[in-house]
Amino acid sequence: MTNKRSSEEFLYERIAIVIEQQILKGILKVGEKIPSLRTICREYGVSQSTALQAYYFLESKALIEARPQSGYFVCKSPGKILGVPVVSNPSEHLLEGTIDSLVSRVYDNLGDNEKHIPLSLGLPANEWLPIAKLNKSLMQAMRQMEGSGIPLAHPQGSEKLRKQIARWAFAMEANLNPDNIIITSGCLNAISYCMMALTEPGDTIILESPISFGMIQVAQSLRLNIVELPCHAETGIDLNVLEDNLRKTPIKLILMITNFSNPLGSCMPDENKKSLVELLERYNVPLIENDINADVYFGNQRPKSCKTFDKTGLVLWCGSVSKSLAPGYRVGWVEPGRFKAQVLKKKLCHAITSTSITEEAIAIFLENGRYETHLRKLRNTTYLNYLQYIKAVNEFFPEGTKASRPRGGFVLWLELDKSIDTVILYEQAIKQKISIAPGKMFTLRNQFNNCIRLNFGLNWNDQTAHSLKILGQIAKGLIR
Amino acid sequence: MTNKRSSEEFLYERIAIVIEQQILKGILKVGEKIPSLRTICREYGVSQSTALQAYYFLESKALIEARPQSGYFVCKSPGKILGVPVVSNPSEHLLEGTIDSLVSRVYDNLGDNEKHIPLSLGLPANEWLPIAKLNKSLMQAMRQMEGSGIPLAHPQGSEKLRKQIARWAFAMEANLNPDNIIITSGCLNAISYCMMALTEPGDTIILESPISFGMIQVAQSLRLNIVELPCHAETGIDLNVLEDNLRKTPIKLILMITNFSNPLGSCMPDENKKSLVELLERYNVPLIENDINADVYFGNQRPKSCKTFDKTGLVLWCGSVSKSLAPGYRVGWVEPGRFKAQVLKKKLCHAITSTSITEEAIAIFLENGRYETHLRKLRNTTYLNYLQYIKAVNEFFPEGTKASRPRGGFVLWLELDKSIDTVILYEQAIKQKISIAPGKMFTLRNQFNNCIRLNFGLNWNDQTAHSLKILGQIAKGLIR
Repeated sequence: MTNKRSSEEFLYERIAIVIEQQILKGILKVGEKIPSLRTICREYGVSQSTALQAYYFLESKALIEARPQSGYFVCKSPGKILGVPVVSNPSEHLLEGTIDSLVSRVYDNLGDNEKHIPLSLGLPANEWLPIAKLNKSLMQAMRQMEGSGIPLAHPQGSEKLRKQIARWAFAMEANLNPDNIIITSGCLNAISYCMMALTEPGDTIILESPISFGMIQVAQSLRLNIVELPCHAETGIDLNVLEDNLRKTPIKLILMITNFSNPLGSCMPDENKKSLVELLERYNVPLIENDINADVYFGNQRPKSCKTFDKTGLVLWCGSVSKSLAPGYRVGWVEPGRFKAQVLKKKLCHAITSTSITEEAIAIFLENGRYETHLRKLRNTTYLNYLQYIKAVNEFFPEGTKASRPRGGFVLWLELDKSIDTVILYEQAIKQKISIAPGKMFTLRNQFNNCIRLNFGLNWNDQTAHSLKILGQIAKGLIR
Repeated sequence: MTNKRSSEEFLYERIAIVIEQQILKGILKVGEKIPSLRTICREYGVSQSTALQAYYFLESKALIEARPQSGYFVCKSPGKILGVPVVSNPSEHLLEGTIDSLVSRVYDNLGDNEKHIPLSLGLPANEWLPIAKLNKSLMQAMRQMEGSGIPLAHPQGSEKLRKQIARWAFAMEANLNPDNIIITSGCLNAISYCMMALTEPGDTIILESPISFGMIQVAQSLRLNIVELPCHAETGIDLNVLEDNLRKTPIKLILMITNFSNPLGSCMPDENKKSLVELLERYNVPLIENDINADVYFGNQRPKSCKTFDKTGLVLWCGSVSKSLAPGYRVGWVEPGRFKAQVLKKKLCHAITSTSITEEAIAIFLENGRYETHLRKLRNTTYLNYLQYIKAVNEFFPEGTKASRPRGGFVLWLELDKSIDTVILYEQAIKQKISIAPGKMFTLRNQFNNCIRLNFGLNWNDQTAHSLKILGQIAKGLIR
């Protein structure tokens, strides 16, 4: 992710880089006012929102700062620039049972009665979902389907939706056959069926570290042994380390969030994905690719997936619209490569089929081209939010705080001072009705005690900003 | 189920018994015409449909026969009266892998392209589902729910639905707390979570025999050992035999369809249910009670459930509306007694939550009293169908054929001549586009080779009657 490459991707970044260069070269001097919004819009022929993104970007790099009613100025004292977390290094030390009780503690607190600021989630805000248009699609589904979706549906799920998913997969340059897609009740459900189909209790699987607690819990529920591999905050796992592990232990499967991993936000470069698929083939190990976040990218195009390079059917590609469109509809899917029969059997055994009318509504939404329109808006909103968060963390959090740089998705990973125990940070924050996800929730090893995951899928407003400020203050108070 | 008891339950049976007695005592003589429909309606003050049920009932016992344009007459030669299958007797001999391949063979043939008569299913006909009224409820749900059910819902499922299920449980005299109910994607899904929560691979569980292949498959998917207990076609398992088994083997759980079991149609008498719950307590063994069919009873009230008698929380009571209202919505539930936390965790691990808008639609349907109105009609239609099936089997099937006498649900179990292999019957029937479920699908032991399960949840018409006729002819041809 060099600047050169980014500049091809983002219009606002191109503008920002010009200003950055002027600052670095001294053309714009410390304390000087930088060109106004209006000037930028006029000179570059861009919208006000693009110009604002350029400002936010420069602000997030602590090159400029806003002064009330005056505009933006080159920073007097170039502020701290947030570092990026180091490569994770899962310790040998296993912490037993920590994750379940901690996950319950964090999410049981998110009840309906007491309203908390849910920085612990990793989802788009309800305000960002296209409720009215989805309702329209649901009504169309009701009218079009035989028996309005009330009779029992095909175990593989809506044919119309499978066609739309295959069509949509062109965005990642994968050629999928609708007949080889199975609809499920969300992405985790797809992963669960894949794991059930491919493993037996006691088998060993490989996960990234840190990894969404949902992945750990489903694997534990199936009594699998988990090997956690260190993960680079921007590029994901190191393929050499992966190969070392494949060589020394019999591995039943690998599970990865290749695009905008959760919680780290890393995105495996496309060339690594290609090499990973070659590795799978060499060791004959299947990969469950959790690709739930790929549609919410901040660049100018969707990153590819391992599925793109999968010629032998070893990649079980899982996705859903739960992070991008309709979390409550529970519509996900898997293209299980060569394992279709086994995965479908698991769906039949454990649920027979899934809810057909919401599947059809999503299919109609996609068919009408509404998804792309919605996503464009969602990506923009999410990205601006991310910049606001980086800015706020820069401003409010203790010196030395490191932050991931996700290029998509909804979560930000912070590494705080080593002396901070983020479970204590959680306890103190929840008293102020702010809910965060402590780092310990994302591993079975003794690590990430000083990390947190923040949900930037929250509407940006004074309350959100204030929560981050309070959180930063608590963190400062916890440094020993 | 003595006549005395039945006569308290059914108005039409009371009428039928009077006529039966007149025939047996010779008051009505062989060949004589019995009272006309109109006479019966007038004399007993009943509707024409009740009078017709009495006729069908007598016909199913081969006491009377219809003559075109003439009315009903006492049978000249009292026809064969269908026997009831004997108590099943699971052999020690285990058949490996039979069930999966057979189940796939039977259901893969039910594709959309070729229309088969689906006698192999066990579901109400689409024509019997209240599509328009459910659509109305779905639209109401869309309007009433926050975000129209599109945001992520509570893991336990719709609160409104949980309240309605608790309210509805009064019909079985159980006092349920909505807070202790978990909504799932159908009944099998509920059973799956319960089994996952309560067992480890290698554990032994007890099932009735024969039992719906779905129950066998979910248990096998979780690598459990299955003990099949013999089952009486009318009253279900023998509690002494159950206790013998509990005494001699460590049993992790029992799974039973206590009301209108599938495929046998047996209904455990309420006093047995009470004793069963006492047994559970004595041996501290949980029971997963699959109560999916209980609402579709033919008597004048819902039989009770084991849950009714459960004071210590050992009964995990599972149900759904998939057999009675909306198979495609995938709305089921479990009241898991003392195991709520464990079962909810499994739902969280494997799917997070379920589709909230269809849950809410069902809740609204129940809330408005539409369910009871719909069920009254459904029970009547289903029961009349059942009588038609018994009559047709009596007429078309080989001498000596035995039939179960389900008092609810949608399936009839036939025991044919010992020399008939019903897998061959299946193969020959499918060529004529008639799909049946061979008995082998309902056990892991070497038994039921001469049995079939028939779905009487099909609209009764010439085609249905004709299919049964053809099936009977094929069966006759297979006797050696």
